[in-house]
Amino acid sequence: MEFLTGVLQKKTLEITELMQTGMEGRTVVVNGAVHTIRDMGTIAFLVLRKRDGLLQCVYEEKEADFSLKDLKEADTIEAEGVVALSERAPGGIEIRLRSVRILSEPAEPMPIPIAKSKMNVSLETRLDLRPISLRNVRERARFRIQEGIVRGFRQFLTQQGFTEIHTPKIGSKGAEGGANIFKMDYFHRPAVLAQSPQFYKQMMVGVFDRVFETAPVFRAEKHNTRRHLNEYTSLDFEMGYIDGFEEVMAMETGVLQCMMATLRAEYGRELDLMGITLPDADRIPAVRFEEAKRLVSEKYDRPIRNPYDLEPEEESLIGRYFQEEYGADFVFVTHYPSRKRPFYAMDDPEDPACTLSFDCLFKGMEITTGGQRIHDYPMLLEKIAKRGMTTEGMEAYLMAFKHGMPPHGGLGIGLERLTMQLTGDDNVRETTLFPRDLSRLEP
Amino acid sequence: MEFLTGVLQKKTLEITELMQTGMEGRTVVVNGAVHTIRDMGTIAFLVLRKRDGLLQCVYEEKEADFSLKDLKEADTIEAEGVVALSERAPGGIEIRLRSVRILSEPAEPMPIPIAKSKMNVSLETRLDLRPISLRNVRERARFRIQEGIVRGFRQFLTQQGFTEIHTPKIGSKGAEGGANIFKMDYFHRPAVLAQSPQFYKQMMVGVFDRVFETAPVFRAEKHNTRRHLNEYTSLDFEMGYIDGFEEVMAMETGVLQCMMATLRAEYGRELDLMGITLPDADRIPAVRFEEAKRLVSEKYDRPIRNPYDLEPEEESLIGRYFQEEYGADFVFVTHYPSRKRPFYAMDDPEDPACTLSFDCLFKGMEITTGGQRIHDYPMLLEKIAKRGMTTEGMEAYLMAFKHGMPPHGGLGIGLERLTMQLTGDDNVRETTLFPRDLSRLEP
Repeated sequence: MEFLTGVLQKKTLEITELMQTGMEGRTVVVNGAVHTIRDMGTIAFLVLRKRDGLLQCVYEEKEADFSLKDLKEADTIEAEGVVALSERAPGGIEIRLRSVRILSEPAEPMPIPIAKSKMNVSLETRLDLRPISLRNVRERARFRIQEGIVRGFRQFLTQQGFTEIHTPKIGSKGAEGGANIFKMDYFHRPAVLAQSPQFYKQMMVGVFDRVFETAPVFRAEKHNTRRHLNEYTSLDFEMGYIDGFEEVMAMETGVLQCMMATLRAEYGRELDLMGITLPDADRIPAVRFEEAKRLVSEKYDRPIRNPYDLEPEEESLIGRYFQEEYGADFVFVTHYPSRKRPFYAMDDPEDPACTLSFDCLFKGMEITTGGQRIHDYPMLLEKIAKRGMTTEGMEAYLMAFKHGMPPHGGLGIGLERLTMQLTGDDNVRETTLFPRDLSRLEP
Repeated sequence: MEFLTGVLQKKTLEITELMQTGMEGRTVVVNGAVHTIRDMGTIAFLVLRKRDGLLQCVYEEKEADFSLKDLKEADTIEAEGVVALSERAPGGIEIRLRSVRILSEPAEPMPIPIAKSKMNVSLETRLDLRPISLRNVRERARFRIQEGIVRGFRQFLTQQGFTEIHTPKIGSKGAEGGANIFKMDYFHRPAVLAQSPQFYKQMMVGVFDRVFETAPVFRAEKHNTRRHLNEYTSLDFEMGYIDGFEEVMAMETGVLQCMMATLRAEYGRELDLMGITLPDADRIPAVRFEEAKRLVSEKYDRPIRNPYDLEPEEESLIGRYFQEEYGADFVFVTHYPSRKRPFYAMDDPEDPACTLSFDCLFKGMEITTGGQRIHDYPMLLEKIAKRGMTTEGMEAYLMAFKHGMPPHGGLGIGLERLTMQLTGDDNVRETTLFPRDLSRLEP
């Protein structure tokens, strides 16, 4: 009987292993995809693309037992060679090739120059060719950074006593209601895709006190803008026993700080590659909605057109204002008007026209919506009635409140938007592996 | 201007904080839900349900500034009291109550006895009442254990150089094809829900070499069994530059070991509560499909009815065989017949009727399907043609192969099934927060 006992030791080495001291002069085996070949005549440089970066290999005919002509770009290979120090190579090392084994070959050459640092190819084309355009190391670096953001989110909340949950994406009714819901057929019954885990995470506050989820959400919005997606990854948390909605903002501040610390500690290579300076999340100003409106209206001489919502240009100006006045990259805008918030938002007892809620803007774009929720059953029923809504389909949600719920609040962060603002991209599709929008359902 | 600088220090303490040495005699503030009240006449025991367990509080009229009658089960409260050691209290401590503040009250009493250790309520009823039945501490413990499983999965793969990805759940075509696909309308275009991230994770091997995802998948299977769900959480990984499919099994062995180590280190309370003994993943036997069939047929005197697939009863007997003969909880069954595997499975060059693939059985139930995939473009096209399939809708998937892909393989683990086998439950709905099946779309 054969037994598996754990990960098999590979004979091939990764770049971080090759860069350790004492490797110079050693014969090693490496693998990777042939990213580019530069033939200089007597010598050639072959760059391997590996998961942890690019590795320069040097080919000299007299030292190798194969011909350079046997290799082409996009081959995947396993190569044997000797480690040498080289100031001009990325990471300070290179491999002097001895022999090579071809693992696979492409059937056709690349249609785009993926080995160039900037490809000069339109976003549309890059999205159409996503499986190969992401092989460009700058393109893929965005998603390594995105990974770091998610890791920071989970790590911080786990430390803070939150439980991770997995809630259903197919349901009988949307959390927010409205027209922006994808409908589907579920064994001959009408069903919808979840716009948000809102109802479920609130119900689970009654069970675990503090919960989070990192999962896809679906919005059938007919906006085709640079900041909208019809499917995105939502970083959600919800926490019970809060003393006020400020506690939710304080928790988000801690989350953002942990994200930045994680990126700083473990994603330096990708940050350097993209030329990213991490924003400061140590001290985040909070400003009331109508005050924010007034401040930017006055400073930038812009009339207030809609007193109940922030236009994208206003968000951008608020970001600019707090950058200029306080050096702040993030800003909390609080006390949004009740009429623009969902029924479950807790109204401010001191001014019921506004809610104990907030958005977090990052460099002038909303990345988070959150706030305190109504936890009292009669108050919730009253608000539903006042909005002319029906409780049909909300029986389970209301059950949680009927049998007692602590004061609670929470938020949702749009992962792709947060990544976009961090990487300085101007379209959220850049930071989405395979975006879904009004016109794009593939790849 | 107000600034947020990080998590606010709560005045309330959690159980782990209360259990630290030196707390005896201190006046503290705690919060939680009133789980149960036992009035013994001169003294009463009030148990608070908190996220990290149950906390016993003692009420004596002469010491408290409130009346016991002011409190009822399912109130959420903030209470002040003095820490006392008590051998008979859970965790060895209790709180002698001084004063209380009611944070919220239920509108109706609980319809089920959630404070009982075993509720004696049918699965159907517990699922109908999920938002409150999960307030039972044994019910919720399952999902803490599930969290530990997911944490172990991610932690191990991150250490092994995998990148976490987020792939779309709405697409134009299913990965496995067939009839088990949920269909939907996407802005007047036909679309489907992802049965698996298969195509996307394979494409991303060409970008990151090693990737994983933990996300929902959707299967419109018309089975209503104790082991089927129509939406579940799939733990997927895919790895490039493998020397054989054994490397995928070895990686899964490492993953399972890390899951168990995480549970042992951080979820002891929940394991004790559920009475769970962790399985041994240190040494997992691997047996060929037809050999496994033969072994159980001979030992348990059971005729082989279907030579191409394993019936649930056969899986169960294979589990029993390897438990009896080798003391093994897990077993890899390898070399499944090609006709029962999807087109992308790599056929065994030594016997093309079977594939370089495997299932992992845990206590006699399949929890994983994995194997090596075809990475060669012409070979992939040939297999598609041989199956009479069309490449329509697979353009992006095939693009990755056309432009070169390393040898690779991977797997998918059903999270709820793995949890179910670990907790010893007999229905996968027990270990699903909000199950979706043929008849259940709510809550």
